[in-house]
Amino acid sequence: MAIRITGTGSYIPNSIARNDDFKKHEFLNSDGSTLNQNNEIIIEKFKAITGIGERRYADNDLNTSDLGFFAAQKAIADAHIDPETLDYIIVGHNYGDVNHNHEQSDTVPSIGSRIKHLLGIKNPKCVAFDLLFGCPGWNEGLIHANAFIKAGIAKKCLVIGTEALSRVIDKHDRDSMIYSDGAGAVILEETDQAGGIISHESATYALDEAHFIFFGATNNTASADQRRYIKMYGRKIYEFALKNVPLAMKSCLEKSGYGITDLKKILIHQANEKMDEAIVQRFYKLYNMEMPANIMPMTINKLGNSSVATIPTLLDLILKGKLKGHSINEGDVIMFASVGAGMNINAIVYKY
Amino acid sequence: MAIRITGTGSYIPNSIARNDDFKKHEFLNSDGSTLNQNNEIIIEKFKAITGIGERRYADNDLNTSDLGFFAAQKAIADAHIDPETLDYIIVGHNYGDVNHNHEQSDTVPSIGSRIKHLLGIKNPKCVAFDLLFGCPGWNEGLIHANAFIKAGIAKKCLVIGTEALSRVIDKHDRDSMIYSDGAGAVILEETDQAGGIISHESATYALDEAHFIFFGATNNTASADQRRYIKMYGRKIYEFALKNVPLAMKSCLEKSGYGITDLKKILIHQANEKMDEAIVQRFYKLYNMEMPANIMPMTINKLGNSSVATIPTLLDLILKGKLKGHSINEGDVIMFASVGAGMNINAIVYKY
Repeated sequence: MAIRITGTGSYIPNSIARNDDFKKHEFLNSDGSTLNQNNEIIIEKFKAITGIGERRYADNDLNTSDLGFFAAQKAIADAHIDPETLDYIIVGHNYGDVNHNHEQSDTVPSIGSRIKHLLGIKNPKCVAFDLLFGCPGWNEGLIHANAFIKAGIAKKCLVIGTEALSRVIDKHDRDSMIYSDGAGAVILEETDQAGGIISHESATYALDEAHFIFFGATNNTASADQRRYIKMYGRKIYEFALKNVPLAMKSCLEKSGYGITDLKKILIHQANEKMDEAIVQRFYKLYNMEMPANIMPMTINKLGNSSVATIPTLLDLILKGKLKGHSINEGDVIMFASVGAGMNINAIVYKY
Repeated sequence: MAIRITGTGSYIPNSIARNDDFKKHEFLNSDGSTLNQNNEIIIEKFKAITGIGERRYADNDLNTSDLGFFAAQKAIADAHIDPETLDYIIVGHNYGDVNHNHEQSDTVPSIGSRIKHLLGIKNPKCVAFDLLFGCPGWNEGLIHANAFIKAGIAKKCLVIGTEALSRVIDKHDRDSMIYSDGAGAVILEETDQAGGIISHESATYALDEAHFIFFGATNNTASADQRRYIKMYGRKIYEFALKNVPLAMKSCLEKSGYGITDLKKILIHQANEKMDEAIVQRFYKLYNMEMPANIMPMTINKLGNSSVATIPTLLDLILKGKLKGHSINEGDVIMFASVGAGMNINAIVYKY
């Protein structure tokens, strides 16, 4: 028995926000003081570090649950399954549905129930719920689905990562340029083939790190705005990730029984290009190796950081032949790795 | 091997809101029209149906994660475990942390990460996440923990249900009198004893029912208040629950291999006393039996409906000898059953 991904789907919003669109933003430091650089320099530096040239925003009339629904529809079609046969719908997200120009998160009913409703699934034994685990939420959903199948309480699961970060960004914060919207989904099934999920590793660092990513006030301290926005301590996260993610990846690979040279692709959460490169370089350094060319497919340049959606979207694009220069073939051993709010880290070794 | 609850804890807020405290509220229909009855009659009728005489509200400086932390501390102490040995912290909730007098839900980092932080747990292998599944979220967390242990990825889990519904209620809505705050927690462990979790059953009804409980506008339609509050179609929920919960309970009991007369206690989600009685009566009717006296311990009169917290709090009170007339003894077969937003239903048969 192997527990395999039998279908993938993603939804990439149509609306493109280009770096130039931020040129007239009034960026401020977190204490409200003005930055010493003009926006052109700020944006140039931002691009050089994060790799982000543009990002996607959901249409105003769409919500996180809608994006997840679109991705789920495609994954179901791709897997050629009857959605009524699904045992679980697991949705990784972080902020629920936040209507355009509103500030409240809506999580009741769960995003899973909303997506099940939109999919029109009747079968009550198809159980839908949400999983909050920061950006690694989709990976973690896959790990939970895998456990449900191993425990004998499921055979077929829909695992979705969906997020509309554009609804929680502070336009006075440079970091607002990082965030993007999107959704990705897969069907995970018990099959009689080989391969599938081989090993996984998860961790929560919450002693000093719990509030590295948090909900905080606008940088425009002079304004009357009481709303809170997604905020992060970028430098701390960078150092944390560089120290801990490569070790989690190594631990996961060791559990899998595969060697470092067996790895064909690493699909890492797309949060910051330089950080991702540094993580993967350090991972290979643990094996006294240079990072191989073309090992780490990236979408961040065009899609930004869409949290839980980045890895399933990346996987879908590669499998559908939509990411130039990258492919995954039968027999390939790949790794999913992620880090995000919590602070949470996880990794999965998967054999195609 | 049995998967057993080895410790319980609960946190009941100190602040009591009595029915009399609602006497001066301006209750309105959902269309903004005034009710035809005076508040004294409204409150009397409310009490007769729901059984609620008072409810608890968290102190203004506390949040959902704080309540969960207090309950978790007690469960850990009760189980005599080292919290560093926990494999998972699973937190069922629905609205995240909503600060007093604020409207935004805060779910990043997850409530699980916040509680892990407050517990001071260092071990990164103790993985913390949140589970959104409506009021049955704590039951479902127990089901997930059980699956993780069966799948071999955990031995010891902390499962918490915590909620502060007082932060999302519309004071112009009669239903606001239902909701309460609180938290309950258990330690679930792999043991070499007998008993523990015997069977479970879960369902999500999302075709017509997804939005029976929802986030909606104040009944004070004339006001400028744009905030959304917890809202429900009480009559629809009543009919839905009466039809479907007894069947889920029966299905769960059948899976367990125990007979109806083996059941010593039914710990049902405390949402509405008349509804709970009708559900349990109908459950026994499926076996052509009358509902036995004393089968269904209730706390709703004093504690209201604290969502995910009601069942673990009830369990803790009984086990600690704090609920007059009720006890659970070694060898007793009991059932947990719940229904709530999603619409979700679940049941667990557990042998003490």
